[in-house]
Amino acid sequence: MSDPRHQFVVEPGTKVDLSSIDPRDTGHLRDKDSARAQLEKDAAAIDELQERLFAERQHALLIILQGMDTSGKDGTVRAVFQATSPVGVTVTAFSRPTEAELAHDFLWRVHKACPPRGTIGIFNRSQYEDVLVGRVRKLAPAKVIEHRYNQINAFEDLIASSTKVLKFMLHISKEEQGERLRARLEEPQKHWKFDPGDLADRSMWSDYMQAYEQVLSRCSTEVAPWYVIPSDRKWARNAIVASIVRRTLEDMDPQYPEPRWDPRQFEVD
Amino acid sequence: MSDPRHQFVVEPGTKVDLSSIDPRDTGHLRDKDSARAQLEKDAAAIDELQERLFAERQHALLIILQGMDTSGKDGTVRAVFQATSPVGVTVTAFSRPTEAELAHDFLWRVHKACPPRGTIGIFNRSQYEDVLVGRVRKLAPAKVIEHRYNQINAFEDLIASSTKVLKFMLHISKEEQGERLRARLEEPQKHWKFDPGDLADRSMWSDYMQAYEQVLSRCSTEVAPWYVIPSDRKWARNAIVASIVRRTLEDMDPQYPEPRWDPRQFEVD
Repeated sequence: MSDPRHQFVVEPGTKVDLSSIDPRDTGHLRDKDSARAQLEKDAAAIDELQERLFAERQHALLIILQGMDTSGKDGTVRAVFQATSPVGVTVTAFSRPTEAELAHDFLWRVHKACPPRGTIGIFNRSQYEDVLVGRVRKLAPAKVIEHRYNQINAFEDLIASSTKVLKFMLHISKEEQGERLRARLEEPQKHWKFDPGDLADRSMWSDYMQAYEQVLSRCSTEVAPWYVIPSDRKWARNAIVASIVRRTLEDMDPQYPEPRWDPRQFEVD
Repeated sequence: MSDPRHQFVVEPGTKVDLSSIDPRDTGHLRDKDSARAQLEKDAAAIDELQERLFAERQHALLIILQGMDTSGKDGTVRAVFQATSPVGVTVTAFSRPTEAELAHDFLWRVHKACPPRGTIGIFNRSQYEDVLVGRVRKLAPAKVIEHRYNQINAFEDLIASSTKVLKFMLHISKEEQGERLRARLEEPQKHWKFDPGDLADRSMWSDYMQAYEQVLSRCSTEVAPWYVIPSDRKWARNAIVASIVRRTLEDMDPQYPEPRWDPRQFEVD
């Protein structure tokens, strides 16, 4: 597969129109089988690169996942990190803020969860909820929401000193979400994944798409780019994200550190 | 494999003599190949049970790993959770306490890292360091160390209200550690894993074994049992731990929750 970053990145400063991006697109992937084969190779490479990252302890990788309900945030994590030991990967899910979290600025809880050097952190939802649900449901005055885009950009610039940031919007169609929500209602083993509140969000679909367009247009930067990942087909979604994660880690090029001691000076009795 | 918990558990109240436990024991495992096959089955079962645990959100599982350097704490995590998504598993490594941590009691940092209901937490080293290295290197007065066993038992009783606790001592021989340390010195890609301080600990091997015997004899309880896992053979170690984790989760028997709503009342348009 040629470098999918070029196709799916939101170039900083451009305006995004989500209706022009096909959620069923499969990029350069030929078919399901070749996508799966590619995913397995990328997952194995990510595992090896993760170990180097951990050994080097110079940089962290932060992966932010956003998307409408059922877009597959958990499924993406499972697939992309299928070969990676949990030792070096931490997933943080951000749901409705607690009282203690609300007693701070909106970036406080997110900052606390940022990965330390040498590790990979994954955010399932993130600071962007505060300009997505925050905007659609008018949880804060328009002026405050407006200011948050700049605050988020400044925050991501700050963490970029130690951390490479990748942001993925998992882009599904309203029709595909309908299918997946119906499956959750029909299959008893999926009932726990269904939240009646999801239907309320669904009814505001176009408001959410506008809120996402704002996010993508205003918060894709050189140090923390957004990628819009077509996600109606899970196999394409997984393979594209894995490929971008792998290539990003390859560019970071972590190295096993040179020891600060001479191996010949030690003897194990 | 018959239930390995009976063979490897430290029965509460018994005195442990580590020299009587063979680090090369393989329990009921016939050979490497069948151990690997069993491990794969158990890892897949653990993945499924973890999803139920997550869906149910009633109980957590905490796995504590202790062992001399090179005993394979990271390797065990990788093997046992090879099929589990990082979404539901968090690994916390406890190394030398920070200044902020030292400004609190010794259980503070551990308590903070305990897994919430629905998740699996893994401690790579733990509160037991404070009665292992703490005792061997006399980092606290004998009376303080002495009191800590009871404090740890009280603490584990507390968390047991929401959390099943499993504690594994990865038991390797001094000879096997010698092999593994030499490999770290000889293979450049393993240099980063070598810490010259490991040799100092190695030179106090019998003191550490005594400290472990104290821990195992005094802190194996009904709610938080210790298991001594023969760990000279990695394949046996991994398969035995996986089997114990799987059986423990099966006994916990997490269930998909019944929804608090009637699936028929919703329609997805």
